[in-house]
Amino acid sequence: MVSEFDLIRRFFTHPAPGAVLGVGDDAALMKPTPGQELVVSTDMLVAGRHFFLDADPEKLGRKALAVNLSDLAAMGAQPRWTLLALALPEPDEEWVGAFARGFMDLAAQFRVDLVGGDTTHGPLNVCVTVLGEVPDGEALRRDGAKAGDDIWISGTVGDAALALAHLRRRLALDPHDAAFCLARLDTPTPRVALGMALRGIAHAAIDVSDGLAQDLGHILERSEVGAVLEFSRLPRSAVMARLADRRLAAQCMLAGGDDYELLFTAPPGVRRLIEDLGRELGLPLTPIGRITGERGFTLRGEDGAPITLERMGFDHFR
Amino acid sequence: MVSEFDLIRRFFTHPAPGAVLGVGDDAALMKPTPGQELVVSTDMLVAGRHFFLDADPEKLGRKALAVNLSDLAAMGAQPRWTLLALALPEPDEEWVGAFARGFMDLAAQFRVDLVGGDTTHGPLNVCVTVLGEVPDGEALRRDGAKAGDDIWISGTVGDAALALAHLRRRLALDPHDAAFCLARLDTPTPRVALGMALRGIAHAAIDVSDGLAQDLGHILERSEVGAVLEFSRLPRSAVMARLADRRLAAQCMLAGGDDYELLFTAPPGVRRLIEDLGRELGLPLTPIGRITGERGFTLRGEDGAPITLERMGFDHFR
Repeated sequence: MVSEFDLIRRFFTHPAPGAVLGVGDDAALMKPTPGQELVVSTDMLVAGRHFFLDADPEKLGRKALAVNLSDLAAMGAQPRWTLLALALPEPDEEWVGAFARGFMDLAAQFRVDLVGGDTTHGPLNVCVTVLGEVPDGEALRRDGAKAGDDIWISGTVGDAALALAHLRRRLALDPHDAAFCLARLDTPTPRVALGMALRGIAHAAIDVSDGLAQDLGHILERSEVGAVLEFSRLPRSAVMARLADRRLAAQCMLAGGDDYELLFTAPPGVRRLIEDLGRELGLPLTPIGRITGERGFTLRGEDGAPITLERMGFDHFR
Repeated sequence: MVSEFDLIRRFFTHPAPGAVLGVGDDAALMKPTPGQELVVSTDMLVAGRHFFLDADPEKLGRKALAVNLSDLAAMGAQPRWTLLALALPEPDEEWVGAFARGFMDLAAQFRVDLVGGDTTHGPLNVCVTVLGEVPDGEALRRDGAKAGDDIWISGTVGDAALALAHLRRRLALDPHDAAFCLARLDTPTPRVALGMALRGIAHAAIDVSDGLAQDLGHILERSEVGAVLEFSRLPRSAVMARLADRRLAAQCMLAGGDDYELLFTAPPGVRRLIEDLGRELGLPLTPIGRITGERGFTLRGEDGAPITLERMGFDHFR
């Protein structure tokens, strides 16, 4: 029987060059960078809700960190440190080793130091805390959207939801399409470089985790503005574009979460700047609507006429 | 059915005067104090392991924060901010309200701002992250103990373990004694003021959460030193002192966790300073042994002769 201490020593004790003191004391010690604000977020992933019980542990470890880094990206922050709390039904070394590999690989990719955590016995639960930094006053917040702003989205939307629909047998994707969508669901890419590049350019930002319509709603509510969204402009992957079930496609694009793309608003004057940025990052950035002074959310259909979310089948979706 | 957003809004959205931006965005924003190091810790509490399934939610909320503040206390840190991730089997408003009350009351007492978190559906799980600050280089670490140091402990030891033994019917305490021990188990007091006062005085510190012998072991291992502990000097409560089962008393004092007292080492030259500090804080501080240059841990019994932990019944305890 492996103890908690053994697990931590074997899998989660790595050098933390960006910390004063990493794993192994009562708490971690870090030296914040002068002139920067600290950005902190925590996310809890529960088996059966955020991932399937038989999820690949390496992908799960990667995703647990990725979704947290996505929160930092949405603030325009540079990721610096992370803490990991893990409840495990049994100390399965193989499982923990694979989980740690996925987690630490992504941490290394983004130069994030694992500085602390907790391992305990219990129903599988993964709680990750991330810390980042952003220059004073430059964070991208949800409450900064202004009337007249363009609304932008990175990448494509709805692919992760399409993967879920496939797994739940609401449709059958061919193996190639399924692999593409499953990769979007299982190994999302936090848009860290984009978030940092949008400092001083974007007025507001959020990452798409609950679904495009709902996450845009968070920006509208916090910024006390409204929006018009052009359905025809939503960037769609090749798989999404050729999906025969148009109703399902719309549901996935508007209400599907888990894409972890950045949704942001910016004044029309910086359109060229943002287009250049997209080319530089090799990441499509698409304007999909605009912020209005009047509260409320209007979705314009492919024919240009307003459509209700109910008509898109939202009441039945969740 | 209450949504996650409702729960967060109703129970966990409070003003956070010590933060730039609190609950409600992708992440919280904080301004670190110049000249201070950041101290961060996370702890996961699982139903059935760290607390009973029918635990009083208000006490549980309080304790979940208390054990984390205890980690900051053990580093000599000033607590500043906290994040709370909560998995709940069902959104029971009454339960969540009571939990939040306990958590927020203790937060207010220590002027800690709740700046973020996560609420989700799943087997009951509480994951708390705390952030504090300590002047550069002044943190109390586990690795600073020196040969010749006195070993000190705050308060009394073993009372929380005695409460557990009572709950598990290994003994029957009278109602008055049971109430005392249960309060020690359910509502531990993080020794924050003591930890901060020990900056520049103590060489090493840890909070007693796993048990006195094991937690002292962490200091010895990290500091690469040994220790002699005088069993007769261990500070005991009135309940512990009159316990007839001496073997159980020894087990509770040496191996019982959950007391959340501070165990620390300091050079003999500051004895008077520490005694004064104890009086000032109204908290007994007791020297219970000393650090040795030779590795290893010796426990001296009431007769002064070395005794083995096995003789105290340790092999059967856990």
